[in-house]
Amino acid sequence: MINFSINKAYFLQALNTTKRAISSKNAIPILSTIKIDVTSEGITLIGSNGQISIEYFISVKDENAGLLVTTPGAILLEATFFINVVSSLPDVVLDVKEIEQKQIVLVSGKSEITLKGKDAEQYPRIQEISASNPLTLPIQTLKKIISETAFAASTQESRPILTGVHFVLSDHKELKTVATDSHRMSQKNITLEKNGDNFDVVIPSRSLRELTSVFSDEIEQVEVFFANNQILFRSDNISFYTRLLEGNYPDTDRLIPTEFSSEVTFKVAHLRQAMERARLLSNATQNGTVKLEIASGVVSAHVNSPEVGRVNEEIDTEAVSGDDLNISFNPTYLIDALKAIESEKVVIRFISAVRPFTLVPAEESERFIQLITPVRTN
Amino acid sequence: MINFSINKAYFLQALNTTKRAISSKNAIPILSTIKIDVTSEGITLIGSNGQISIEYFISVKDENAGLLVTTPGAILLEATFFINVVSSLPDVVLDVKEIEQKQIVLVSGKSEITLKGKDAEQYPRIQEISASNPLTLPIQTLKKIISETAFAASTQESRPILTGVHFVLSDHKELKTVATDSHRMSQKNITLEKNGDNFDVVIPSRSLRELTSVFSDEIEQVEVFFANNQILFRSDNISFYTRLLEGNYPDTDRLIPTEFSSEVTFKVAHLRQAMERARLLSNATQNGTVKLEIASGVVSAHVNSPEVGRVNEEIDTEAVSGDDLNISFNPTYLIDALKAIESEKVVIRFISAVRPFTLVPAEESERFIQLITPVRTN
Repeated sequence: MINFSINKAYFLQALNTTKRAISSKNAIPILSTIKIDVTSEGITLIGSNGQISIEYFISVKDENAGLLVTTPGAILLEATFFINVVSSLPDVVLDVKEIEQKQIVLVSGKSEITLKGKDAEQYPRIQEISASNPLTLPIQTLKKIISETAFAASTQESRPILTGVHFVLSDHKELKTVATDSHRMSQKNITLEKNGDNFDVVIPSRSLRELTSVFSDEIEQVEVFFANNQILFRSDNISFYTRLLEGNYPDTDRLIPTEFSSEVTFKVAHLRQAMERARLLSNATQNGTVKLEIASGVVSAHVNSPEVGRVNEEIDTEAVSGDDLNISFNPTYLIDALKAIESEKVVIRFISAVRPFTLVPAEESERFIQLITPVRTN
Repeated sequence: MINFSINKAYFLQALNTTKRAISSKNAIPILSTIKIDVTSEGITLIGSNGQISIEYFISVKDENAGLLVTTPGAILLEATFFINVVSSLPDVVLDVKEIEQKQIVLVSGKSEITLKGKDAEQYPRIQEISASNPLTLPIQTLKKIISETAFAASTQESRPILTGVHFVLSDHKELKTVATDSHRMSQKNITLEKNGDNFDVVIPSRSLRELTSVFSDEIEQVEVFFANNQILFRSDNISFYTRLLEGNYPDTDRLIPTEFSSEVTFKVAHLRQAMERARLLSNATQNGTVKLEIASGVVSAHVNSPEVGRVNEEIDTEAVSGDDLNISFNPTYLIDALKAIESEKVVIRFISAVRPFTLVPAEESERFIQLITPVRTN
């Protein structure tokens, strides 16, 4: 029966990371528990919601963990409740001991709390992914790609494939990442430093957002493994599994226009603030759009809500060229797109009032392009 | 028609303070607006939910406000929306101008936003309270009294009078403040530095909590005025009105016991943490209680939940005297009571397992007493 002692703060941080995979409202009750698997090498914490699974390994060799394993074993405990209890304990060190009938006794200072657990055999198996030939990615690169694309994925289940982000590795080092909800699209291309096996997968955008929270910035890189319908991101301590989406991702390359009639360079912050003002009023209009007007080198934004009022604003630009234009669109799409751009300036290129326009960072070195579809207003 | 310019940040802070009285879901639609009343002396912002009303006066003499009034007037604007729009504006200075059909044009930098307003005549009148012979209270004193008592008021409307805090001034300087929800009671007595007219009122505890947020710590003192069914707290800029509760407040003095059989002194933080641990498990029990045991000078806490587990904990004490005792109660009441105590140590005095016990700060100078009723178990 389990018996170990551990640094409380370290244990709590590992529990909270693992809990990111656990939903207390899961349709499968056993998935509201956390699995604690103790061996002579260390403790593995396991959480899953059926879509993503996290394994957190705490090694007896990790000095910060202060882990001393006396007897191995495995048990399931209600995740939220167990974490609240551990968090409430008074002392730096926590002793954990299993007693009869799957009960766990936590001793910390003068406090002794006994919790009822469940048989570890009841927990579903997480698919093993063979550990051969992984792709290696710096965690910062992976997080940046996700923040540049995942927001553009659809949140509606009507076309499930669009709720994912399409990751394609070709020529063993050219990684293309793209997401679209059919109103806007975001695509990032990078060249990897280390070669890998080509792949073509669609990862749920929700899983990618969790991944961003799970891998802290102190982690340098992750290894990426594939199985039939799963992908595994692994650091020294953390294994993050997610189910892949099945189906064919639409061909997005053909959507990207190459010829334009007008081009405007903005400071990202200026344009974003103007759009946030416009959105306050456009939310009260029937079609929810802002009209952008390019006239003789001056760019302005206009919203007119018969109920609430109107906005008219000249927007500072860095450069304007090409034809005059009136184009209407949902300002939220432009705000989201601008949030994803790290560089100070953005270049927006237009074809016409009814064709998608593109955004690229003004720094040429970035291979990052976004598309927004306008809204036709008579 | 209104025309003024003002420092945006100052205006926003005043708007947000006034908005504390405004509920966007008010049954009376006009109360979702903010009234802006401009005279040559300054601007008065007015918000109300029918229960509390706030008037915020911005003087043309206040240099921080940068207020320049060109033309006076009054108008009503949707509070939340107007504040969001002001907050989104780009420049330090904001020009506000009324145009035809009750429209307001906001100009800031290159941004021009027009909002539809409503006729100020539609706004209900706030009762005038005659400004004679006010009571003067340091704001810190008032806020401390509120934080020591208001939490103990009832949140249930079954006995409306108990949702208020009873304020009684007798002998022109003895202020007693008391709240109870019939399970616990909190009473604070202070002697005022300045004399005032005696009074006996019940103020809704919700109003008092808003008051605490409305008057910032930079304000030194407030004047307190009474009318039939209202009370007004006034600082240089802010007038805070609240309706009073009608009815007789129960006589709470007779509830306070004077003889005890046991007495324990705890460090507030120790006891609170132990109760927070106990509560995690007591929440899962049928009667939601923790049992406190005093036995031969040792105090311990116990909870036993057949479903979830159990807590057994010895609690460090500073002093223990009197009889042994087992007493059960809702740990939330004790946690709330301990949160209200600023001093490091608390003295708890018991009569028996079925009689209320008292808490007083260990510092004798404080005239602050709390009562908690135990729960009979088996």
